[in-house]
Amino acid sequence: MERILAKECLQKIGEKVLLQGWVSNIRDHGQLIFIDFRDWSGIIQIVIDAHDNAENHKVAASLGMEWVIEVEGEVTKRGEKAINPNLPTGEIEINCQKLTILNKSEVSPFPLDTDGTELDESLRLKYRYLDLRRPRLAHIMQSKHKYTLAVRNWMDQNGFTEVMTPLLTTTSPEGARDFLVPSRIHKGTFFVLPQAPQQFKQLLMISGVDKYFQIAPCFRDEDPRADRHAGAFYQIDIEMSFPTVDRLFGAAENLIRDTYKTIAPQKKIANFPFPRIAYKDAMNKYGSDKPDTRFGLELQDVTDVIKNKSEFNVFNSAETIKCLVAPKCAEFSKTQIEKLENLAKEKGAKGLAYTKVTDTGLDTGVARFFNPELQQQIIQATSAKSGDMIFFVADKLNLANKVLGYIRLNLGDLLNLRDPNILQFNWITGFPFYEINDEGKLDFGHNPFSMPKGGMDALQNKDPLEIESYQYDLTLNGYELASGSIRNHEPETLVKAFEIVGYGREEVLKKFGGLYNAFHYGAPPHGGWAIGLDRLMMLLLDEPNIRDVYAFPLNSNGVDLLMDAPSPVDQKQLDDVGLMLKPNAPNNQK
Amino acid sequence: MERILAKECLQKIGEKVLLQGWVSNIRDHGQLIFIDFRDWSGIIQIVIDAHDNAENHKVAASLGMEWVIEVEGEVTKRGEKAINPNLPTGEIEINCQKLTILNKSEVSPFPLDTDGTELDESLRLKYRYLDLRRPRLAHIMQSKHKYTLAVRNWMDQNGFTEVMTPLLTTTSPEGARDFLVPSRIHKGTFFVLPQAPQQFKQLLMISGVDKYFQIAPCFRDEDPRADRHAGAFYQIDIEMSFPTVDRLFGAAENLIRDTYKTIAPQKKIANFPFPRIAYKDAMNKYGSDKPDTRFGLELQDVTDVIKNKSEFNVFNSAETIKCLVAPKCAEFSKTQIEKLENLAKEKGAKGLAYTKVTDTGLDTGVARFFNPELQQQIIQATSAKSGDMIFFVADKLNLANKVLGYIRLNLGDLLNLRDPNILQFNWITGFPFYEINDEGKLDFGHNPFSMPKGGMDALQNKDPLEIESYQYDLTLNGYELASGSIRNHEPETLVKAFEIVGYGREEVLKKFGGLYNAFHYGAPPHGGWAIGLDRLMMLLLDEPNIRDVYAFPLNSNGVDLLMDAPSPVDQKQLDDVGLMLKPNAPNNQK
Repeated sequence: MERILAKECLQKIGEKVLLQGWVSNIRDHGQLIFIDFRDWSGIIQIVIDAHDNAENHKVAASLGMEWVIEVEGEVTKRGEKAINPNLPTGEIEINCQKLTILNKSEVSPFPLDTDGTELDESLRLKYRYLDLRRPRLAHIMQSKHKYTLAVRNWMDQNGFTEVMTPLLTTTSPEGARDFLVPSRIHKGTFFVLPQAPQQFKQLLMISGVDKYFQIAPCFRDEDPRADRHAGAFYQIDIEMSFPTVDRLFGAAENLIRDTYKTIAPQKKIANFPFPRIAYKDAMNKYGSDKPDTRFGLELQDVTDVIKNKSEFNVFNSAETIKCLVAPKCAEFSKTQIEKLENLAKEKGAKGLAYTKVTDTGLDTGVARFFNPELQQQIIQATSAKSGDMIFFVADKLNLANKVLGYIRLNLGDLLNLRDPNILQFNWITGFPFYEINDEGKLDFGHNPFSMPKGGMDALQNKDPLEIESYQYDLTLNGYELASGSIRNHEPETLVKAFEIVGYGREEVLKKFGGLYNAFHYGAPPHGGWAIGLDRLMMLLLDEPNIRDVYAFPLNSNGVDLLMDAPSPVDQKQLDDVGLMLKPNAPNNQK
Repeated sequence: MERILAKECLQKIGEKVLLQGWVSNIRDHGQLIFIDFRDWSGIIQIVIDAHDNAENHKVAASLGMEWVIEVEGEVTKRGEKAINPNLPTGEIEINCQKLTILNKSEVSPFPLDTDGTELDESLRLKYRYLDLRRPRLAHIMQSKHKYTLAVRNWMDQNGFTEVMTPLLTTTSPEGARDFLVPSRIHKGTFFVLPQAPQQFKQLLMISGVDKYFQIAPCFRDEDPRADRHAGAFYQIDIEMSFPTVDRLFGAAENLIRDTYKTIAPQKKIANFPFPRIAYKDAMNKYGSDKPDTRFGLELQDVTDVIKNKSEFNVFNSAETIKCLVAPKCAEFSKTQIEKLENLAKEKGAKGLAYTKVTDTGLDTGVARFFNPELQQQIIQATSAKSGDMIFFVADKLNLANKVLGYIRLNLGDLLNLRDPNILQFNWITGFPFYEINDEGKLDFGHNPFSMPKGGMDALQNKDPLEIESYQYDLTLNGYELASGSIRNHEPETLVKAFEIVGYGREEVLKKFGGLYNAFHYGAPPHGGWAIGLDRLMMLLLDEPNIRDVYAFPLNSNGVDLLMDAPSPVDQKQLDDVGLMLKPNAPNNQK
């Protein structure tokens, strides 16, 4: 007999079937033993009756959880009262005719019938093969498969060609650290694992591939972060020739609209096509370049209204006064307000001023500094209503934005304004091409391969900090989901762009000589983007932990606890590649 | 106006269109200039008439090959005589109304209108972005995309789930050298790039994933070989729980039958389901464990017929006498025979004996050693016919098989018996579990994770060299296409299998501890296979060079000439990972 899956039994009522899978639960009622039998398709109930077959009953009584069994039996309808509405196979069960043990199991170190989030992650990762048997994780694996397949089919139907780009290559300009792979054949030299297929996808455009895509493995040696998987991750990567901004944006918008329901049919896209927000507006209105616009609560600039209009020195001496009207929050408790104040201080603010809006004016908090006329002006300027609370931050513009942006997100949570079933996408446009980096030096704001607005002319004649980039981010519900740009395909403009941040021509040619040369042979205008697959999966599946999007993730410290990687190697393996451990180097072995 | 592709113009006769692409060819007839315009979809003819627009004509006259242009114009039907039947768009052309230069191009270092095989490969790889503009290479990229998509959809429809397995991991037992990736966070330790997802796919079975697949990147640090891409390659990788040999074989057979026509509709599968040949029979009949069975010419054992029946000492002293009847080859010239003799010697034979079959007996060559009676016995035993040639090798069995197998393939080529449009698949079964390796030691014949036939009992009680493995190869037209097995899922049997070749229990646990432990927690019986995607692409597309199946291959010396990888790195990058170059190591830098 051909083995079938549990859920396929629904089509086999009255027939004899063969099942192979795991013991998920056992209920021993003496004469009758019930087994919750589990396979990849789900759970089905097996009934073993000592009256029917004493031998099977003996075997069933000996079973342990997670043992591997084979069941031959007849699919029967359950009686009305025995129906289990919580189980897809709840209307049927298997009357066991033959029960065979295929393999035993030691006792699992943790229960498998929870969602696992209550457990120590290290233990889960060490026994990942058990952890993955949970319905939640099996569902993630199935969803990731279904979603990437839907993406690939969409791409194909829309004229994109998947090309696999090299995994042993040279450095790319993504700004993270490279993973090195020492060469054995050419000792003393190293391959680099690609941070992204950036250069290759641009080379593919020069090769005449009209529209490229790839579910591309990317490698970045960064210190672990909560929202990024350590080491390796995947992105939905595209590039197209002869792009316009509308074609570039349209590809992402249509892709997402046409595919997300495969795994998240209950969610709704709030606005289509996706709204476009200028970077500066995003910072000023939401205090973030990845604003969550599922709710309003926009930051307001009240500098002109308040500054030097009262005796309140903190406000008078500040560069900017910004505020946020929290609707119907006048009744916030002292504890709630203190919590928000602490959050503001965490983000670098000196404090968080507040006041309540009443029928007659402002009350409590900073209201005492404002005369009735000023109070009315503030209410009018901010469109605040009686019963609202207003929060103020007076500081430098960037800091005020950042702090109030953070308070805004917290209010969004507090007021339940962040509905996970609403998908609010935004394009952020008009990023600065250059910025001052943490070391106080002029540096690229984003991807150095983007085209600066105004091209060579702008690079030669404008203040670098004034130049905008043809660079775009796509955000979803407050997360950066994708990044893209129209590229710089002019070799001399590329050299110039690097020169401005201090790279000489020779350095550019040494690092990106292949691409620089290629630009001389009929390079078409081109552009593209990359969507973080993991982050999209997290948001579509409401999974807070990015590691659970991977079947076998590294832990938050970049270690594979199941396979014990990374680990020391034999000296012979190092000899093969002409390397040795640096003596006296701090030994950080796990 | 929205830009469209050249081939889409077929649906736009009489309409105005916008095209963007490359100048593939120019024919200047004075008043009239014809441009072969090329984009990803193919070529279309653009007509620029000085009478219509002098400005466009001037631009057209200035164009160079491979320049990037934009063309606005009307799609018109060509006159009867001007139709080009060799071009898919040969019945139409574009009457140019506006011609714009989007980018210039330097002169290509090689022509792009050939198939490129006549060129020095190094030059092609250095300018790969030009090389890829050839129709042949564009076709390979498109075919690879279409084929992998067809595979993925087939897998989905047949219950397989694609799971991406880790790329930064630990060693796997594929028998090649590992690529190392030094860890920065845990200095002194190393990740390993996976040689195959072998352990992870087995862990997925233990995780309850019923049928897994992946188009999986694999990394092996092997010395370059003609039929294998250096460094990294992809395989179509599957694993299934509760397998039977028929289900395992059926998955490959149905997958290939249902998908190959996507890119090779002109080819035919010779036998379905694929024949199964025992390893010993393959060696004895075809002298190879990857026999090309598109033609017969089977090796025959004539030891009993000839040995000690004549005065020919070479034959009398040999362990085995094997022969091959080449039909209708009695007229082979001396040169042809000498060529075959040299091939035989290359493979280690002392010589290649031959004789012709005539109406009355044998003639020339070794015939002189055989009396008429023996001649008739040989003719009868081999079913040779008048006009045939018989080739003999007398030596040890293995060598005689190997040499005659090689001669057989050469005869297949000479006699045009290897039709590339016939796909002859075979399963090779019954491989020995152990063998004597090149160093004279007992070693695994193939995948050590395969189940030995007879299990623990066989390992404990049989001569290791007599044990067969549940290991299978799939061959296509004389190439090894895939390898698979029913796995050993019993932890103690696994330890025992390794002990026999000299690994202690501790060594096994150190190397494969994760999998060993997992086997204790309800591991289902499981098995799978992996098809070499590149080799399948080569055979379906009739491409002799495996590197051309890759968009950006490493060259035959493992070097990326376009991106200059591998290359030296800064000392700082080595400091980051706590390594230094070994002093006095032979410097093999390129």
